[in-house]
Amino acid sequence: MLDLPFLPFGVFLGSLGFACVVFVSAWCQHWRGGFAWDGGARTFNWHPVLMVTGMVVLYGAAALVYRLPPTWRGPKLPWKVLHGTLTLVAFGLAVLGLAAVFRFHNDRGTPNMYSLHSWLGLVTVLLFSCQWVAGFGAFLLPWAPAWLRALYKPVHVFFGSIILMLSVASCVSGINEKLFFSLKNGTTEYKRLPAEAVFANTLGLLILLFGVLVLGALARPSWKRPDADFPDSCQVPALPQGH
Amino acid sequence: MLDLPFLPFGVFLGSLGFACVVFVSAWCQHWRGGFAWDGGARTFNWHPVLMVTGMVVLYGAAALVYRLPPTWRGPKLPWKVLHGTLTLVAFGLAVLGLAAVFRFHNDRGTPNMYSLHSWLGLVTVLLFSCQWVAGFGAFLLPWAPAWLRALYKPVHVFFGSIILMLSVASCVSGINEKLFFSLKNGTTEYKRLPAEAVFANTLGLLILLFGVLVLGALARPSWKRPDADFPDSCQVPALPQGH
Repeated sequence: MLDLPFLPFGVFLGSLGFACVVFVSAWCQHWRGGFAWDGGARTFNWHPVLMVTGMVVLYGAAALVYRLPPTWRGPKLPWKVLHGTLTLVAFGLAVLGLAAVFRFHNDRGTPNMYSLHSWLGLVTVLLFSCQWVAGFGAFLLPWAPAWLRALYKPVHVFFGSIILMLSVASCVSGINEKLFFSLKNGTTEYKRLPAEAVFANTLGLLILLFGVLVLGALARPSWKRPDADFPDSCQVPALPQGH
Repeated sequence: MLDLPFLPFGVFLGSLGFACVVFVSAWCQHWRGGFAWDGGARTFNWHPVLMVTGMVVLYGAAALVYRLPPTWRGPKLPWKVLHGTLTLVAFGLAVLGLAAVFRFHNDRGTPNMYSLHSWLGLVTVLLFSCQWVAGFGAFLLPWAPAWLRALYKPVHVFFGSIILMLSVASCVSGINEKLFFSLKNGTTEYKRLPAEAVFANTLGLLILLFGVLVLGALARPSWKRPDADFPDSCQVPALPQGH
């Protein structure tokens, strides 16, 4: 593959993540009436902004901490603390984002947790909470033995990508659902593709692009931190089993 | 990681994929009126069935061909042909699935391609078509040089997973959208979580689980085909660049 250094890619990705936050905020501010915490429609508007900022952009940044070349030198602990802190802040934003939509529903008497979007979103946040607790227990607390860390690390890495994938799918289904709701209850207006629909659809594609680029950066072998702790960072091809 | 052999996992995954096809067919048959090709609502019903069958289940099966231990022995060409054929059939089903929804829209005078679901779905199918043509040109036609194959292979593998991820996100947003449309135009019924909503939401989660398990199987190092053609199958940790 092309010998692309991480840093310029990271700057581009940071700009794209910033654009996602700006787009979702501008959508809610310009077309959906702005923000409040009074239980009304403006309370709901915190939901997309906090979920995109926490579960996609900040989560993506946290996932890429170990791709920064400075993390490859010296002790790993400070970077672990940074990774754990960023993911904890992302999780906090997600919890606030859930609180916003539950408060909005409860104040209007709308049931919670009926749509596929809500089921998927809750599964994603629950998986994220398990991932954070397990990661904290295995990699930050001092008493986890090396064999347990080595066993759990590929699982943590795999679910890290999966949770981002689920977050992106949740955002896409949520934006789609909100546009059907807001633009004349899904019966007439969305299909005429007004400016708001083009803008929010574009937001959805930007979120997808951000997620795909983070997953690509995570998968790229030459950007992985050479890890002296675990011999499993070299995936030697296994021989066929049962021979 | 646990030393799980691929074959029992593959049998389980095959059953799960079969369950996805049964669920989406049963949803459209039992709650949405069944199937026809007359331009009406029953024409639309081919859309979810063909997209789930082609872009998720058959696509997932095609992606896992090289994880079957028999493919690790002897010449690779027959397995390449099988992989190419399965993906071509998956692509054909996706094109028919698109034809179903376009015909349904056109016969009702509904605009096409306005929702985020439709934008995402079309991006996914277009990426899939590029992936198929590039894969055919690089790996099945005889005149591609070895260096080009080695250069393109990780890109093909990466986009293989990304397209599946986008397919799953498309399915989830599509099921969500269809339930808002069908259950009283997104205003009252879906939120009461009738049996159809529980059934179709469960279908969405089964599709997600299938996608996650396929991605997990693709990522698992010990299930990868030891590839004598390309030395890049051993991802030796790169040294930090710029030192």
